Amino acid sequence: MSELVEKLTSGDKRALARVITIVEDGGPNATSIMREVCKHLKNPHVIGVAGPPGVGKSTLIDCLITEYRKMGKRVGVVAVDPTSPLTGGALLGDRVRMQKHALDDGVFIRSMASRGAMGGLSRAIGAVIHAMDAFGADVIIVETIGGGQLDIDVSNYAHTVVAVLQPFSGDEIQMMKAGLMEVADLFVVNKADLPGAEQTIRMIFDAVRESGRRRGWLPPIVKTSAAMGEGIKEVVEAIERHWKHLVETGLIDERRKRFAKAEIVDIAYQRLRDELSRFASSEEMDGLAERVVYGANPYEVADEVLYLLSERLLSKKP
Amino acid sequence: MSELVEKLTSGDKRALARVITIVEDGGPNATSIMREVCKHLKNPHVIGVAGPPGVGKSTLIDCLITEYRKMGKRVGVVAVDPTSPLTGGALLGDRVRMQKHALDDGVFIRSMASRGAMGGLSRAIGAVIHAMDAFGADVIIVETIGGGQLDIDVSNYAHTVVAVLQPFSGDEIQMMKAGLMEVADLFVVNKADLPGAEQTIRMIFDAVRESGRRRGWLPPIVKTSAAMGEGIKEVVEAIERHWKHLVETGLIDERRKRFAKAEIVDIAYQRLRDELSRFASSEEMDGLAERVVYGANPYEVADEVLYLLSERLLSKKP
Repeated sequence: MSELVEKLTSGDKRALARVITIVEDGGPNATSIMREVCKHLKNPHVIGVAGPPGVGKSTLIDCLITEYRKMGKRVGVVAVDPTSPLTGGALLGDRVRMQKHALDDGVFIRSMASRGAMGGLSRAIGAVIHAMDAFGADVIIVETIGGGQLDIDVSNYAHTVVAVLQPFSGDEIQMMKAGLMEVADLFVVNKADLPGAEQTIRMIFDAVRESGRRRGWLPPIVKTSAAMGEGIKEVVEAIERHWKHLVETGLIDERRKRFAKAEIVDIAYQRLRDELSRFASSEEMDGLAERVVYGANPYEVADEVLYLLSERLLSKKP
Repeated sequence: MSELVEKLTSGDKRALARVITIVEDGGPNATSIMREVCKHLKNPHVIGVAGPPGVGKSTLIDCLITEYRKMGKRVGVVAVDPTSPLTGGALLGDRVRMQKHALDDGVFIRSMASRGAMGGLSRAIGAVIHAMDAFGADVIIVETIGGGQLDIDVSNYAHTVVAVLQPFSGDEIQMMKAGLMEVADLFVVNKADLPGAEQTIRMIFDAVRESGRRRGWLPPIVKTSAAMGEGIKEVVEAIERHWKHLVETGLIDERRKRFAKAEIVDIAYQRLRDELSRFASSEEMDGLAERVVYGANPYEVADEVLYLLSERLLSKKP
């Protein structure tokens, strides 16, 4: 294990891929490799890129990678996918665009599945970011494919949240307001050559001003045409300005804590789910289910399940 | 509380609405009212209606209600909604169609939110079905709006699972195969006046035959044009035939156990989530998060959280 982490910290991409697979699988191996990985953290800038499907997030990230590479920075990218069977095909197409960086030793791109409609975020996302950190990434970009709630959850892991939009109607602003609007540190209006771009910027500006409470930071709005490589430098400048703001004001500590909380909760949550679904297929469960069939109170029986699970968990306490 | 349940069992719709609100809110009130409700169960037939959005599930259910009312049966309907901000509008429109039954004392319709992308099924779905049972429903129809995983989860609560489709391409069959195909007891090809209906029936037939393992039950495939009221009698006949099959073979006991297991797990699961998110905003969590910020192993810290939660849960054990 130590040997693998040594390779990882020397910048070996294959070692990084293996470490990520181990943490994604979870269990004791994940815990023990993370013990090693956590000795080598430099806590680099984590940039979240969120927004509805189809606005050009992947193309934008592709451009950001190129820009950061020009600056001599190593870049890690994690794409978090809701793994919906309905949209799977289209997303794969997007992923392909970034593959031109696959041979660049300074770029590492990894897709990971969120656990879909029922599962929430994969427990591994924090661990994957740590692994890329130990690997030597100077910048880590986290992309959400899904939109909606997933954006908000993933944004907990980012120091800077970039919301990507395109010229659109008022409906979508309403949706944004419900969540992403509140957490975005920076707005990108992509496909700015399409009609309605100025109006969109105006709407975002109004919404941002309305939501207020930004403690010295007014989220900038940047126009891009990522497919033509336009406006990318401005996006990177705005991202770097936000990082400087976080460091200078000390807000970075809050973001790091937000990250840590999300990470702890996501890991704990999925372990609970694992324990519960293991229990659900046990013989004990059969007996409890029968009692409910014959009229027992399901809430009381569920309480019993929780006590049994709790005892089981505590029995593993070292 | 007892008075409310008394009203419920006498068939009072307002009492039913109040009981459902109480169980949806969860907590000690839900547990104590369920203790009463569970004394009055007759375990009527629960029919799950699942399938992709847009195939006409609501229109079909509307017709099923009318048909069951003609037979003198009281009908309860639970519509489980994934509460996606993206689709909210369209779904409300569908709901409206069923409202013509709102004034009928023998029909009770309730929409409930699944907990969206992160939350899985609402803990209350089993309890809502029990409440409708105690209210005196002879037939309870559970509709899933979402499609996909939600269909499969909701189908655990149904004795008879009706998969609704429309004439379509092969892609969707693939999707169905992954889940709904396996759990459906009956297929309805709605909008059968559209081109491709026969081909669709053929594809379903092949898929059903392929999946085999039905223990004496070959899922029938029924054509309908629900908007024109065609084929509804045949659907009801097939549903009733399946119920008879379950009762005669004793398979009904398995379905009831499946229901009870799903119910126990959903309640336990959401209590765990509640406990965890309460913990996530505690001061203790702050300290643990800081340790991760300063390089502690997040997997080990998550274990500590689980031990703390377990101790907390056990301390509440009566």
